[in-house]
Amino acid sequence: MTITIIGTGLIGGSLALGLRGFQTKIIGVDKNAEHAKLALELGLVDAVLELKEAVKISDLIIIAIPVDSAREILPKILDEINDETVVTDMGSTKAGICKAVENHKRRRNFVAAHPIAGTEYSGPKAAIHGLFNEKTAIIADKELSSDFALQTVEKMFKLLNMRIIYMESEKHDLHIAYVSHLSHISSFTLGLTVLEIEKDEAQIFNMAGSGFASTVRLAKSSPEMWAPIFVQNAEYLSKALDIYIENLKKFKNVIDNKLSEEAKILMKKANEIKRIIN
Amino acid sequence: MTITIIGTGLIGGSLALGLRGFQTKIIGVDKNAEHAKLALELGLVDAVLELKEAVKISDLIIIAIPVDSAREILPKILDEINDETVVTDMGSTKAGICKAVENHKRRRNFVAAHPIAGTEYSGPKAAIHGLFNEKTAIIADKELSSDFALQTVEKMFKLLNMRIIYMESEKHDLHIAYVSHLSHISSFTLGLTVLEIEKDEAQIFNMAGSGFASTVRLAKSSPEMWAPIFVQNAEYLSKALDIYIENLKKFKNVIDNKLSEEAKILMKKANEIKRIIN
Repeated sequence: MTITIIGTGLIGGSLALGLRGFQTKIIGVDKNAEHAKLALELGLVDAVLELKEAVKISDLIIIAIPVDSAREILPKILDEINDETVVTDMGSTKAGICKAVENHKRRRNFVAAHPIAGTEYSGPKAAIHGLFNEKTAIIADKELSSDFALQTVEKMFKLLNMRIIYMESEKHDLHIAYVSHLSHISSFTLGLTVLEIEKDEAQIFNMAGSGFASTVRLAKSSPEMWAPIFVQNAEYLSKALDIYIENLKKFKNVIDNKLSEEAKILMKKANEIKRIIN
Repeated sequence: MTITIIGTGLIGGSLALGLRGFQTKIIGVDKNAEHAKLALELGLVDAVLELKEAVKISDLIIIAIPVDSAREILPKILDEINDETVVTDMGSTKAGICKAVENHKRRRNFVAAHPIAGTEYSGPKAAIHGLFNEKTAIIADKELSSDFALQTVEKMFKLLNMRIIYMESEKHDLHIAYVSHLSHISSFTLGLTVLEIEKDEAQIFNMAGSGFASTVRLAKSSPEMWAPIFVQNAEYLSKALDIYIENLKKFKNVIDNKLSEEAKILMKKANEIKRIIN
């Protein structure tokens, strides 16, 4: 089995660590020569090749690069692969990439996927063992993939000990806007705001508790990865942001008017998240 | 040494665990009889007494209840104590409580304090060993406390292995609005928004990754504790919320117009928080 991973960063590198096995060769492809070299040095991949060469000899090709580049490169990869090669992507938006290949003659070799796993770090050094363990993997529009391609990608996620769920690509983008992309914006904006408003940075260091650290954690995430996600999912995310801003204004109004009981009502509603997230 | 802890919840209970020692008796006072009983059963406190009785026999009285109740109760406690009794509070706002006793004849027996430590849980069962370990404790307006009172409270924080910093009460409230209270509002509002917008709660469970869990964690916090904090710190918090909302609108505008490079600029600025928070 020869697996090519395009993008040797946090996700690609962690996949490499999770998928190594007897009779598995892992090839890294990265347009960032520094990352490719590092991935080899760190032992994440067995070899580094140019995309064209790698595509020809691979049984499975995993695209783990920012979603704009992924959408661009996927049709070109499908142009080049053999009949049996399976291609999958790990992007956080699914409708755009599915649309980009909807009429491609090798559409059925492609499985659109999104493993819900990550950290706020990036690059080959951020790769960790067990990143995907017990997390959820979403496979989108599975009926558009061949049985063989689907089974290959399902096997991959099972090897990583992931739970698989299936979803339409549009539905995926809608739900993930609410549950993931919105929280990234809220955290990025918290970081931005605190740095802007708190001129005395020593006080951020002094007074930040674990609560602030937890809320602002995602503000450390990679702009290169997240900008294309936000742009591709602009429609759903924008709607979510409208409601988020409305709710913030409600909260601010309650605080400005010192309406303690009304503040409690809002917080008690928010507390309901406990039922769902441990 | 007899220590009375008023409020046997997360903070009071964890203090009790951290301050036990030879020749130390810890008395719990709680208007919630259920909590008082639980604190005794869990071995957090050695005895439960009514406030009036406890005050008379205590060397150190620690107020660990919501900030509105703390502000109410403090003058009454100072009315009743002996000359040598030291009183401190653990509240997340400091200007209001200092104002409430500024002219009290026993003002110097009081030390206004804020240990920056907590979790999203509450009640005696939420009490944990080591909650305060290596965290920061703020002592406000120290020049208004007697040397003896100050030394007693400093010793308490050192026993808990905390780092002590000193600050004016108004400055404390300003900085903490930016660094702690704002992040609580952003998280409460995230919980509220996702529950409102995502009608299909199963998808929150399915698709929530560690990023969402981290950002929404504070939305599980106690409304009883947080409503009075927000109201007492309304002025600074409102200013912070204005800027937060403005920055969200900037982000939304960039996304609506699919300005990928501008989005990256905002995120790179937010990334600067890495320099300060590990």
